[in-house]
Amino acid sequence: MKSNILSWLQEGNIIVPALLFSEYRKLNLNEIELVLLLNILTFLEKGHEFPTPEELSARMTISVSDCNEMLRRLIQRGFIEITDEYSNEGIRFEKYSVKPLWEKLVDQFLINNKTNKEMDKKAEET
Amino acid sequence: MKSNILSWLQEGNIIVPALLFSEYRKLNLNEIELVLLLNILTFLEKGHEFPTPEELSARMTISVSDCNEMLRRLIQRGFIEITDEYSNEGIRFEKYSVKPLWEKLVDQFLINNKTNKEMDKKAEET
Amino acid sequence: MKSNILSWLQEGNIIVPALLFSEYRKLNLNEIELVLLLNILTFLEKGHEFPTPEELSARMTISVSDCNEMLRRLIQRGFIEITDEYSNEGIRFEKYSVKPLWEKLVDQFLINNKTNKEMDKKAEET
Amino acid sequence: MKSNILSWLQEGNIIVPALLFSEYRKLNLNEIELVLLLNILTFLEKGHEFPTPEELSARMTISVSDCNEMLRRLIQRGFIEITDEYSNEGIRFEKYSVKPLWEKLVDQFLINNKTNKEMDKKAEET
Repeated sequence: MKSNILSWLQEGNIIVPALLFSEYRKLNLNEIELVLLLNILTFLEKGHEFPTPEELSARMTISVSDCNEMLRRLIQRGFIEITDEYSNEGIRFEKYSVKPLWEKLVDQFLINNKTNKEMDKKAEET
Repeated sequence: MKSNILSWLQEGNIIVPALLFSEYRKLNLNEIELVLLLNILTFLEKGHEFPTPEELSARMTISVSDCNEMLRRLIQRGFIEITDEYSNEGIRFEKYSVKPLWEKLVDQFLINNKTNKEMDKKAEET
Repeated sequence: MKSNILSWLQEGNIIVPALLFSEYRKLNLNEIELVLLLNILTFLEKGHEFPTPEELSARMTISVSDCNEMLRRLIQRGFIEITDEYSNEGIRFEKYSVKPLWEKLVDQFLINNKTNKEMDKKAEET
Repeated sequence: MKSNILSWLQEGNIIVPALLFSEYRKLNLNEIELVLLLNILTFLEKGHEFPTPEELSARMTISVSDCNEMLRRLIQRGFIEITDEYSNEGIRFEKYSVKPLWEKLVDQFLINNKTNKEMDKKAEET
């Protein structure tokens, strides 16, 4: 009983900005791409920094080759990037970074804010 | 500058169990259904307890009628339910509950745990 | 077994900006005041918007009168405020807002950023 | 403007079970000990797995030697433990684990649940 709650706890939680769910369509992402990004985030959060297309597609409804192609396109379109890192012992490894996704989301957020302010201003003038 | 960070903060975050992303396929959900559930969760979190198909589909890539049909099917298949609540002043209102989703996820988690234990046991016996 | 995990889930989680833990001292808060604020946040998160000194001190190591005095001082020093809200049915109620705390935290964050940039600049010049 | 929101985002958030705030007193923790544990959690979350008493006390209102003593006592009383880990390259390092804290919290949660059920039963019998 206790051990089950503890292993549930160990699985952990992911924190996602609410804006990602309201704005992904405006960022030209579809639901499959969004879930692929959320899965990369989940792997990163667990310390697995470079999940393979096999690992990602195993939990999704898409094939390995479709997943591979989707990853390639997400990199090309500037949603994720692959960075080179070095361990404390100087060994090189690759990892995904979702920083470009957060940049796009912040851009969208600032555009929304600006539009809202302009609409407020217009409403006041009339 | 400050006001932008504050309004970013105000948008809030959603906490999602990491297991939802690794197990949704085993629960027979596809990516569009998963994102629909996550959007309901986001509305609930913000205190908007009964988002309409119009509000949900507006942020997704599906039409209002497809969204409507998907909601109907998710209720039928036992992922969400509509409950009757009463405000402090005794006025009735409807709200979505995602409790059935968490129940299914916990069931799946317990099945996984059991299978793992049996596999460990078999591995020990051989 | 299952019901225990579900009731654990129902207790919920609180999201706290990591900066609050690294900066509270710079905001002139001590640990008891910080935990009092975190407890108010927890009550708010659960939809209980105006916890009493009795409810707050019951889970802390301070007496009701000390808690009362601490709440008064936190309002005076601009960390929390009491706002008037109206229910859908037009009935007035009071609630705590921790928005002033987030404002102070963002101010401190911007000061840190500025200081870091100036130090980087000085380091470059020498 | 954008860079400030991005660096705010980068500071990250900590997820804390709401139960920790309602139950820490029952676990015989005071507010300073609780905040010390939350600070260890924050460092762990950021990938810094063995913060020193100097680093911890620098953000708290206690001295280095008091912090050192408090860490010693929290290990002795079974709230945290120091574990030996090995990097991919086979180099040994120490890290804090807060797993014992979660175990104590789950124990307390199960005791509460049991007490509630017994009280419900008694209420029904009378």
